[in-house]
Amino acid sequence: MPTAPLRLGIAGLGTVGVGVLKMLHKNAEMLSIRTGRQITVSAVSAKSKSKDRGVDLGNITWEDNPVVLAQREDVDVFVELIGGSEGIAKDAAEAAIAAGKDIVTANKAMLAIHGQSLALAAEKTDCVIRFEAAVAGGIPVVKALTEGLAGNKINRVLGVMNGSCNYILTRMETAGLTYEQVFAEADSLGYLEKDPNLDVGGIDAGHKLALLASIAFGTEIDFNNVVLEGIGSITIEDIHAAADMGFRVKLLGVAQMTGRGLEQRMTPCLVPASSPLAQLEGGTNMVILEGGDSGTIVLRGAGAGAGPTASAVMSDIIDIARGLRLKTFGQPASSLVRAQPATATTPAPFYLRLQLLDKPGAMAKITSVMGDAGVSIDRMRQYGHAAGQAPVLIVTHKTTRAAIDQVLSDFTSTGVVEGIMVALRIEML
Amino acid sequence: MPTAPLRLGIAGLGTVGVGVLKMLHKNAEMLSIRTGRQITVSAVSAKSKSKDRGVDLGNITWEDNPVVLAQREDVDVFVELIGGSEGIAKDAAEAAIAAGKDIVTANKAMLAIHGQSLALAAEKTDCVIRFEAAVAGGIPVVKALTEGLAGNKINRVLGVMNGSCNYILTRMETAGLTYEQVFAEADSLGYLEKDPNLDVGGIDAGHKLALLASIAFGTEIDFNNVVLEGIGSITIEDIHAAADMGFRVKLLGVAQMTGRGLEQRMTPCLVPASSPLAQLEGGTNMVILEGGDSGTIVLRGAGAGAGPTASAVMSDIIDIARGLRLKTFGQPASSLVRAQPATATTPAPFYLRLQLLDKPGAMAKITSVMGDAGVSIDRMRQYGHAAGQAPVLIVTHKTTRAAIDQVLSDFTSTGVVEGIMVALRIEML
Repeated sequence: MPTAPLRLGIAGLGTVGVGVLKMLHKNAEMLSIRTGRQITVSAVSAKSKSKDRGVDLGNITWEDNPVVLAQREDVDVFVELIGGSEGIAKDAAEAAIAAGKDIVTANKAMLAIHGQSLALAAEKTDCVIRFEAAVAGGIPVVKALTEGLAGNKINRVLGVMNGSCNYILTRMETAGLTYEQVFAEADSLGYLEKDPNLDVGGIDAGHKLALLASIAFGTEIDFNNVVLEGIGSITIEDIHAAADMGFRVKLLGVAQMTGRGLEQRMTPCLVPASSPLAQLEGGTNMVILEGGDSGTIVLRGAGAGAGPTASAVMSDIIDIARGLRLKTFGQPASSLVRAQPATATTPAPFYLRLQLLDKPGAMAKITSVMGDAGVSIDRMRQYGHAAGQAPVLIVTHKTTRAAIDQVLSDFTSTGVVEGIMVALRIEML
Repeated sequence: MPTAPLRLGIAGLGTVGVGVLKMLHKNAEMLSIRTGRQITVSAVSAKSKSKDRGVDLGNITWEDNPVVLAQREDVDVFVELIGGSEGIAKDAAEAAIAAGKDIVTANKAMLAIHGQSLALAAEKTDCVIRFEAAVAGGIPVVKALTEGLAGNKINRVLGVMNGSCNYILTRMETAGLTYEQVFAEADSLGYLEKDPNLDVGGIDAGHKLALLASIAFGTEIDFNNVVLEGIGSITIEDIHAAADMGFRVKLLGVAQMTGRGLEQRMTPCLVPASSPLAQLEGGTNMVILEGGDSGTIVLRGAGAGAGPTASAVMSDIIDIARGLRLKTFGQPASSLVRAQPATATTPAPFYLRLQLLDKPGAMAKITSVMGDAGVSIDRMRQYGHAAGQAPVLIVTHKTTRAAIDQVLSDFTSTGVVEGIMVALRIEML
């Protein structure tokens, strides 16, 4: 085991970067006992040198350019906390690898897009890339999957992996507020990314799912084939209707290897109110790992925040300090299989919401469209007409997403449906 | 990274040992990709050579003596699945270490008693001892704590870690059966250890808690100072009364570092019915890790069974195959601190059950004893007298275990109490 100090270069001093500095400082003695060496910070880099971050940067060298930081002689591990799939974060990561530095990163976007090429490059220069903080904040789920369950064939990985979306959905329900109201509230509280569509569009969570799928199934990252739907069209009426029928609405990620290929989706779903996933409140994350022999392992914890994310970054740094050097996705990047994307998702019941115009024969037209598409109705509710329209809620029997899309398209041609229609998959878990 | 085949010697071919052989066989290709080498079995040992275990032992060498197996030239890792703190398991483990073999074990009893000396010995011969399977079956909790949360000061570790006890308690509640009835049922289903007191006496779970405390707090294993209470005195009436008051009864382990020293207890407790711990059914385990920065991480999964336990054994084997070599308790054994055991546990409300004799002034005597001991009453219920006795249930305000013990002892002297008294801590979580 190595005993020389492990020297970090940290790029990005937002809440997570500062959190890492604080943990290194307050737990220094414990860390040196646990790793058998000192962990020091040689240099840092961030946008503003003068900003007061509430942490003493003391005699740590300041680098304006993260790319220069990443290549410094006195840096062993490049800690990338800048974010973003392109630009300076990627440039610096590539520079670090070329210079033979290990990388610890929280950057799910960069890895979801460029993970394969970065991993290949890292193996050439004998570097490791670790990314526990990129998925589900403080929950050590990357480690659980890559190491803890490594003996299992994994059947399915699923979970709630975006705390901001879960906050919005649970807050809508508990406070009876509209999506727009809670969105504005979350934004003002700083819960959303600078581009909020990364959160509410499901993109950020989709990045995380693509990473988990790769390590679960030994497949190349394939973010482009994650079916993505955001939560922007969910109304408080959907949430109430779901609750009435014993469900809650969650932005749920599911990755599973099926006979038809690799299925990856991050979409708002209805889940049974009694399931552990349904009971997640606010910013909490939950990931469920279904292993062939291990059975179902459930992990729950804070999905974001300075402390939890810094804790995940620290665990990667500690692994490297201890000489625990794992391949990026748990196996050589060249051995990752390019999975066939599943052309269709596993059949499921669906929840539909539409506005039916107050015309004779309207309901007959709707039900006949469904019959023609082979989609049968399990339950249906029509509420009273207001302003010539009535909300209709339908729960179908198990069917395909393709059949549902056909139904939605045909509904439009009937002339008795108006406005936005919603179709949410019901995941029985 | 090493590339030569990793050669195992497996001692003990019960359900777990056979489960490991099956996983090695069916996942061979995946394992070689993930570890970069073959994992082979050189030799096995078990009580009966002729027994049909439903697995082909093919050309694997049979050794009658595990101690001989552990020292074989063609064994790199000694997989100890015999069990028991003393005797052949310990002899073989010591022989393996002396011969420079790594050890993977599921033996919580051996490690809880001899972990410190084994770890010291292993470090002298540069061997590792891994024990993921010793705690909470398929849940990778040892890894989560030793590695995933290694950057945190851990505040508290708690959980339900004995599936058999949890099965008994939940089955009593759901089927309305007595402890004795469900005990007999569990025994006939093979859910209990050969010495059932290991399960229902809380000893097995206490071993697990002592292991988790060591890696959480960097302290020497101290099983002798785990406060142990079994579930044998819990009646169906306690369970119903707890439910009436919004609680469920669980055999709960708690380890925490307090100002008074290290507190470790494995005792039946009342937990709020709405807490995730309360909702655990049957043989499921849950461990909650409270980290200084990570916040609360909850892990849930199967606590026993061939598949889950074999999965945990496999994860240790895979770590060794990958060259991930961690110190037994996450840091050098010589650096583990001998913790001061807490002389008293953290104050809590308590639930008391007693049989009050139908005598004038009986209740006055009871309440006056409590007042004298400084234990104040939050809630009290007295049921109707039958055969001259009435069950009385009391929930106290927060108090100490010492005060409760004083009260129980003084109750006996009043002459108005008869039979077994029960005092269960209420853990608000």
